[in-house]
Amino acid sequence: MSGTRMSTDRGGVSGAVKPLVPVLAIAGVGLIGGSFAAALRQRGLVGEVLGAGRSPSSLALARELGLVDRVVSYAEAAEQADLVILAAPVGATEPILQAMRPYLRDQTLITDAGSTKVNVVQAARRALDDRIAQFVPGHPIAGAEKTGPEAADADLYQGRVTVLTPLEENTPAARQFVTRVWEAVGARVLSMEPDIHDRALASVSHVPHFLSSVFMWQVATSPDSDLRLALAGSGFRDFTRISAGSAEVWRDIFLSNREAVLAELTEVRAALDQAQAFLQGAQGRELEDFLERAALARRFWGSRSGLK
Amino acid sequence: MSGTRMSTDRGGVSGAVKPLVPVLAIAGVGLIGGSFAAALRQRGLVGEVLGAGRSPSSLALARELGLVDRVVSYAEAAEQADLVILAAPVGATEPILQAMRPYLRDQTLITDAGSTKVNVVQAARRALDDRIAQFVPGHPIAGAEKTGPEAADADLYQGRVTVLTPLEENTPAARQFVTRVWEAVGARVLSMEPDIHDRALASVSHVPHFLSSVFMWQVATSPDSDLRLALAGSGFRDFTRISAGSAEVWRDIFLSNREAVLAELTEVRAALDQAQAFLQGAQGRELEDFLERAALARRFWGSRSGLK
Repeated sequence: MSGTRMSTDRGGVSGAVKPLVPVLAIAGVGLIGGSFAAALRQRGLVGEVLGAGRSPSSLALARELGLVDRVVSYAEAAEQADLVILAAPVGATEPILQAMRPYLRDQTLITDAGSTKVNVVQAARRALDDRIAQFVPGHPIAGAEKTGPEAADADLYQGRVTVLTPLEENTPAARQFVTRVWEAVGARVLSMEPDIHDRALASVSHVPHFLSSVFMWQVATSPDSDLRLALAGSGFRDFTRISAGSAEVWRDIFLSNREAVLAELTEVRAALDQAQAFLQGAQGRELEDFLERAALARRFWGSRSGLK
Repeated sequence: MSGTRMSTDRGGVSGAVKPLVPVLAIAGVGLIGGSFAAALRQRGLVGEVLGAGRSPSSLALARELGLVDRVVSYAEAAEQADLVILAAPVGATEPILQAMRPYLRDQTLITDAGSTKVNVVQAARRALDDRIAQFVPGHPIAGAEKTGPEAADADLYQGRVTVLTPLEENTPAARQFVTRVWEAVGARVLSMEPDIHDRALASVSHVPHFLSSVFMWQVATSPDSDLRLALAGSGFRDFTRISAGSAEVWRDIFLSNREAVLAELTEVRAALDQAQAFLQGAQGRELEDFLERAALARRFWGSRSGLK
């Protein structure tokens, strides 16, 4: 860049200084990718934003909303971007990276927002092969039942955790850069092994979604569902909120993390057996102790999580 | 009342006209009872509010907060109130009504806010005997994980459903009066048989609470619960919110509606078996269809429920 820039001009919107991410490409311009771009844009940390994806209507909407500057192919994204963020359903990781691989510049880094990591890393290794060092896997623990670019929110990642599961092939500089970008959008970055991530997320994200969907399905398919739903209140609302999420996204997550999800479901069933035995036996004291243990844990988590 | 009152003075705060409920007694001054009093008070529909209950600290706090004017015994409440609302855990219904029965004036009506109705009606019949006509059972479908008089909210019932399960002994005037009072606090009143209510509520309220608590218990008692909870996001927050509720209140609800809850849990387990078989078999299409059915039902309910 030019040597004439003012020393007080420390990057951002002016264009006189190279921003943190000169060219960003989003593969999948929904809530996650759109919010990532919006967050960098709002903070003046991105130059141009390219959007790639399979849905022409989402891409057009993302451009209308100003989330992306240009709609490009995956090949063009790989060729032109300094940083690519994959924000498509995790099942699309391998084909998207395959489409990018032949065009990928040496200096381009890729991160992702996939909710599972073991499977995504395997897919990335197959697709990127000897360029795997350019992929720094990530998972921002944010999102919502809302979907699509219209739901994008520059504050989505503010104060939330993003897990990175760096690969041994990643250079320290690559890890640092991707960490810095996630921090720049407001996230707190934690690093861990992919399998540790996947087992923890199976427990606190995938299983609740599975149970919420199963429950919602059972209510909706019951013969008297209209009456039931007329009497559903705020507890029902909260418990089932996640079941409204994208069926395709969650199918991919469940299939991608199948073993861990099934293992956790077994544990939850064991806990259910126990609580149900207390109820069956009208063991009020034991049932209350069980409920109290859960209530105390939830209240403690609620007071510390920072999630309103 | 005096014949001198102005015809434009149609009740409320002036004191010149008898309010809808001249003397209200709340038995159990927590969120539910406190909000009921606050709602009537805010609308100028109550004269004096008496508070009775077993917790001196809650009663003192309710008086400090201006929710109740005087702390009284159950006997005094029965003797002095025009309307009594029972808002204690459902397991306390029978002893409270027994304590009131000898002092109950002929004109006093009693309603309740218990989350189960078959059991409450049985308890009320035993306790009130030949005075059962004075009891019009109800259940406001509102409430929250918050508890205690400090959580009382004059708008808690606004736009929510209150189910009444009137008894054949109730006079039309008694039903109408209790309906009118619940409508006055903002609720939409639906009437049905107690067992219909209990089965529907087992499905949309009690089972979600049971599952949320079971899940929260399982996460909290896992060896790596700290890591799990550090990675828990907004989906976890919503799914587990209800598990923070009062263990005592929910123990009573579960025991009081045991058969219906156990029957519904059997149905939910069957749905879980089905979804889990799709996952086990990596049946992506079937799994996605299942999730989509739940998601569509939840979105439809969300758009109609009026619950934000």
